[in-house]
Amino acid sequence: MSLRDEIFEQPAAIARLLDMQDEAVREVARNIRERDIGWVYLAARGTSDNAGLYAKYLWGAFNGLPVALAAPSLFGVFQTPPRIGSALVVGISQSGQSPDIVSVIEEGRRQGALTLAITNDGGSPLAEATELVIETVAGPENAVAATKTYTTQLVAIAMLSAALTGDAEHRKWLGRLPSLVEDTLALDETIKDASARYRYMEQCVVLGRGFNYATAHEWALKLKELAYVLAEPYSSADFQHGPVALAHQGFPVFAVVPSGKTAPDMITLLTELVQDQQVELLAISNEGSALALANTPVQLPERLPEWITPIPAIVPAQLFCYHLTRAKGYNTEGPRGLSKVTLTW
Amino acid sequence: MSLRDEIFEQPAAIARLLDMQDEAVREVARNIRERDIGWVYLAARGTSDNAGLYAKYLWGAFNGLPVALAAPSLFGVFQTPPRIGSALVVGISQSGQSPDIVSVIEEGRRQGALTLAITNDGGSPLAEATELVIETVAGPENAVAATKTYTTQLVAIAMLSAALTGDAEHRKWLGRLPSLVEDTLALDETIKDASARYRYMEQCVVLGRGFNYATAHEWALKLKELAYVLAEPYSSADFQHGPVALAHQGFPVFAVVPSGKTAPDMITLLTELVQDQQVELLAISNEGSALALANTPVQLPERLPEWITPIPAIVPAQLFCYHLTRAKGYNTEGPRGLSKVTLTW
Repeated sequence: MSLRDEIFEQPAAIARLLDMQDEAVREVARNIRERDIGWVYLAARGTSDNAGLYAKYLWGAFNGLPVALAAPSLFGVFQTPPRIGSALVVGISQSGQSPDIVSVIEEGRRQGALTLAITNDGGSPLAEATELVIETVAGPENAVAATKTYTTQLVAIAMLSAALTGDAEHRKWLGRLPSLVEDTLALDETIKDASARYRYMEQCVVLGRGFNYATAHEWALKLKELAYVLAEPYSSADFQHGPVALAHQGFPVFAVVPSGKTAPDMITLLTELVQDQQVELLAISNEGSALALANTPVQLPERLPEWITPIPAIVPAQLFCYHLTRAKGYNTEGPRGLSKVTLTW
Repeated sequence: MSLRDEIFEQPAAIARLLDMQDEAVREVARNIRERDIGWVYLAARGTSDNAGLYAKYLWGAFNGLPVALAAPSLFGVFQTPPRIGSALVVGISQSGQSPDIVSVIEEGRRQGALTLAITNDGGSPLAEATELVIETVAGPENAVAATKTYTTQLVAIAMLSAALTGDAEHRKWLGRLPSLVEDTLALDETIKDASARYRYMEQCVVLGRGFNYATAHEWALKLKELAYVLAEPYSSADFQHGPVALAHQGFPVFAVVPSGKTAPDMITLLTELVQDQQVELLAISNEGSALALANTPVQLPERLPEWITPIPAIVPAQLFCYHLTRAKGYNTEGPRGLSKVTLTW
């Protein structure tokens, strides 16, 4: 299985997850309700940390749960853990191997917290350490750059949100995800053609907001680890507090702009960047005005609720990174300096 | 007052803060103890958000308080705030003007939370909205790039930590800060000479861990907003989960490496990056082995407790950004596209 195969496997992986982990997710929701949990402490690294950003917005918006992203070094390196006994302590990791993430969970248990692993390996040290497990059941992931394990982590996070609210509309949308993601895979040839323009790009910024702050982070990470482009992710608000100074004629700005509550502000900012600073814009969007501003427009499916867009929106970004990596002549399967499982403290 | 003046004003600003806000800080500590607060929800943008990262590690390590960095768009844009009534809700802002930060505070009060502003303007909307205020009393800051308001925010955060623990040793170290920062200002000429080498640098990564994760973020932000260098900050652990693929011969890596618990891992990583990937290293450190690895070593004062190092360590970074901006021929006082007060939702 190559990176490309794994990207194309995503509709099937998501369908399998929805089917196989429904009961496990309900069990987690029952435990959260019974324990009357009011907040979440979440530990993850790399791609899984980007999935954690989705949880921060989704669980915040629909489940009232504030999410604190962990400072793992307080547990492992400094050995001065904060008080997290009243939280749901969550570890997200494809491999479930990294000792720093496991150390946060172990401390959570020691303090009496409810603990949850979201992992692709139900037999991993992380899954062994937690009381509750949602397996992403994405199958083995061979490419070093994570794709199907990221989208299935997002789906697991969204399944838990829907199980907590019992919102039938949300559950229905989750059931449509395999075909929504299938639709975005049809952009493959278009994106391949578009990627040539970026052959000599060495840096860019990636903007996304709210639910798609995660998408901006994950797209930027893939650009770095596959195509060696220094891509820095920003929320459109944070970008205006300083980094906007980078913008100048021809500077590449990538943006994820789904229809919804974040679109008006995002489109105002992008219009200024394009018209006043003459930046070069690549937009993944289903908003006509954002697509019209872009040198490279990438069309998302229409009429999606904003909360679900990070799952289909990352797929064209993955395809873009794959094709750009090939256009640059780099190795899509094993980026330099990386191995599939990274162990940090 | 120019950017340079404001950098050099920092010892006096810190001394003034330690002197004038001692009682206000004790009052905040009393309230936190009385209300038996167990966690913190913290909202900030830009440089102030970097100060928030210091709070996340310092209050986590010494006060047992987990810190959740806010998702302000949940309050303003989405209008779906999470449950934060049991937290200490903190807003950090130089100007105290940005409506998104004020909206987090207002929702916190509505939910019955204890609220605190750390701001340079005691008459600002943010200070008006909170129950408690620590003023950074840094005096007017004219340069668009924040310097003395950042270091005084760090000092305010450290004063509160020390007031909560009552640790006399920590208080003593705080009293030494004006002279410690004065010592780092003496590096000005050395740093000016060293900055020439980076005249044509267009991108870099900045590594820091634990307490100095904040320093990495703030140094990177200054590089972006003043010198238009795309500088991306990482913890040394997160850097290994993907972005390390960027490293290649001559790639500039900046690192903050104080003696302490994070030093061994950081030095192991930097040794690999220098010896195996032949990166170019600029290190701010008081560890001989880190300084020896660096093309450009910048000496921090010796024998500091790690928790206090972010305050003196950012000063040579500010000087570096100032001199690099001049070497590149850019405007140190008013970077393109920025104004002093940024209002976002």
